[in-house]
Amino acid sequence: MLPLSSAAGSDTVFHHLLRVYWEDTDAGGVVFYANYLKFFERARTEWLRALGLGQQALRDSTGAIFVVTDTQVRYLWPARLDDELRVSVDLKKRGSASLSIAQQAWCGQRLLAEGEIRIGCVDAHSFRPRRLPTEVSSLLP
Amino acid sequence: MLPLSSAAGSDTVFHHLLRVYWEDTDAGGVVFYANYLKFFERARTEWLRALGLGQQALRDSTGAIFVVTDTQVRYLWPARLDDELRVSVDLKKRGSASLSIAQQAWCGQRLLAEGEIRIGCVDAHSFRPRRLPTEVSSLLP
Amino acid sequence: MLPLSSAAGSDTVFHHLLRVYWEDTDAGGVVFYANYLKFFERARTEWLRALGLGQQALRDSTGAIFVVTDTQVRYLWPARLDDELRVSVDLKKRGSASLSIAQQAWCGQRLLAEGEIRIGCVDAHSFRPRRLPTEVSSLLP
Amino acid sequence: MLPLSSAAGSDTVFHHLLRVYWEDTDAGGVVFYANYLKFFERARTEWLRALGLGQQALRDSTGAIFVVTDTQVRYLWPARLDDELRVSVDLKKRGSASLSIAQQAWCGQRLLAEGEIRIGCVDAHSFRPRRLPTEVSSLLP
Repeated sequence: MLPLSSAAGSDTVFHHLLRVYWEDTDAGGVVFYANYLKFFERARTEWLRALGLGQQALRDSTGAIFVVTDTQVRYLWPARLDDELRVSVDLKKRGSASLSIAQQAWCGQRLLAEGEIRIGCVDAHSFRPRRLPTEVSSLLP
Repeated sequence: MLPLSSAAGSDTVFHHLLRVYWEDTDAGGVVFYANYLKFFERARTEWLRALGLGQQALRDSTGAIFVVTDTQVRYLWPARLDDELRVSVDLKKRGSASLSIAQQAWCGQRLLAEGEIRIGCVDAHSFRPRRLPTEVSSLLP
Repeated sequence: MLPLSSAAGSDTVFHHLLRVYWEDTDAGGVVFYANYLKFFERARTEWLRALGLGQQALRDSTGAIFVVTDTQVRYLWPARLDDELRVSVDLKKRGSASLSIAQQAWCGQRLLAEGEIRIGCVDAHSFRPRRLPTEVSSLLP
Repeated sequence: MLPLSSAAGSDTVFHHLLRVYWEDTDAGGVVFYANYLKFFERARTEWLRALGLGQQALRDSTGAIFVVTDTQVRYLWPARLDDELRVSVDLKKRGSASLSIAQQAWCGQRLLAEGEIRIGCVDAHSFRPRRLPTEVSSLLP
C-alpha cells in the first residue's frame, strides 16, 4: 500500500505518490512522455485538495475553473512499469488570475522529469480569464 | 496519405481507417487493449458524420448525447506502431432509445479485435434515458 | 489522503481506491467509459502486487506477460471529477493459461460499472499462449 | 472525409489534419491540454512518414528510436468535440543527435496551441543518446 500524497519534505513543497501502470507506458517500454503532464496534474489536484479546495466544488460554487496555459517539461530519465513515482508541487508565483508551479517527478533518488506549469483561472462557460476566487487565494500559501 | 473513412465494402457496413501512433501503444510493444474502445468510437463518430450527424451539433440542437452502456470486446491479435487499421461499424439493432453496433478492427487481412457496443441516448444534463431524436432516427439506415 | 488499496470487505474480494482526475473525464462532464478498463487494470495490478507479484519482475524472470483477451463491461452510472472510486477484483476462474476476473467500480453506495475481464498468459516476444508460471499459480488464491 | 496529412502551405512546413473525438476532451468541455502533445506527435510521425521514414522500420533496422526530451507548449484557445484541427511541423534545428521542431495547432483561422518539441535519438535498449542514423539525416530537409 502506498500513501497517496503528503506534504512531507519541506514546508512549502507538496508531494504526491503514484504508481506506473500499463496504461502509462508506450512501446518504448517506458512511460509515455505526455503522461507526465497527467502526473503533474494529479499532484496539483491533491495539493489543492490538501489545502481544502475541491475543483468540482469550486466550479459549482464560483463558476471558475483552472486551465493550463503554459507547460514546459524536460524529460531526463525514463520510468517503467511498476515504478513508484514521487511528484512535487512548488508554487512559484501567484498572480491575480494565474499561478506558476514548478514540478518534478522522481523515482527513488533519480529525477525523471521536471517542468513549470502555468495555470489560469477562467469562467467555466466563456473561458474568459477572471481573478482567482477568494476561496482560492485565501487558502494558497 | 490515408483516406480517413469510407463506406466501401458493403452497402451497410461503414469503414474508418486510422494509424497506430506511439500514444496508442504500451510496454508490451503493442496497442493497449483499452484503446480499441477509442478506435471503435472514432469509427462510430465518422459513421454518424457520414450520415450527416455531428454529435456536438446534435447536443446543441436537441440536448441529447449518446452514452455507451455496454461494451464487449474480444482481442485476437496485437497491432503495432505504424500499423494502419480498418475499423468497421455495423448497426445491428435499433431500439427507441438505444443502438447496438458490431465493430471489428482489421490490419490487412488479419482481424485484431471485435466487439459489440451498445449505445443509449440520454439528456446531456440529467443523464436520463430519452428517445432518439428524430434528427437521428430519420437518418439511420 | 486516500489508502490506495486494501483487501477489506471479504476474504476473497480485493479492493483498490482511486480518485477521478481531469484526465479521466470527457466533454459529457463524466468519466470517459473506456477509462474503466484502466481503473479495472490498476486494481488487478495492485491485487497481484498484494499477492507478491510484480508484473515487470515476472516478465524479467519468466518471459511471461499477461494480456487481456476479453472484456465485457456494463456502465450504470457516471462518475465525476474528484469522485473517489472503489474498484473490486474477484477471481472467478483459473485456467492453466488464463484467468477470469469479475470487477466492479463503486462510488459510495452506488455501482458505476461492472464487468468481466479475461486474461491470458503469453510469451512477451511471440505473444503465444503459455501456461501460467508457477510463480503466479502458486500465489493465486 | 478528411485528407489525413499534406505538405501544403509552404515549402518546408508540413501539415497534418485530425478530428477531435470524445476521447480527446475533458469535463471542461474542451480538448484536454495534454492531448496536444499527442496531436503534435501524430503530425511529426506523418511528417517522417512523408519523408519516407517509418519509426518501427527504423528501430528494426538501426536499433534507434526517437525520444522527446523537451516540450514547451502555450495554450491559447480551446478546441471542442468534432473540431477539425490542422497541426504543423516545422524543423527548426538539426543537431547530430537531436531535432528541434516548432509546432502549431489551428482550427480554421484560430491558433489553438503552439510549442517547441525537442527530440533526441537514443538506442532502443539502453536509452543512451546516439547520432541520428544516416537513414534519417539523409532524408531530413
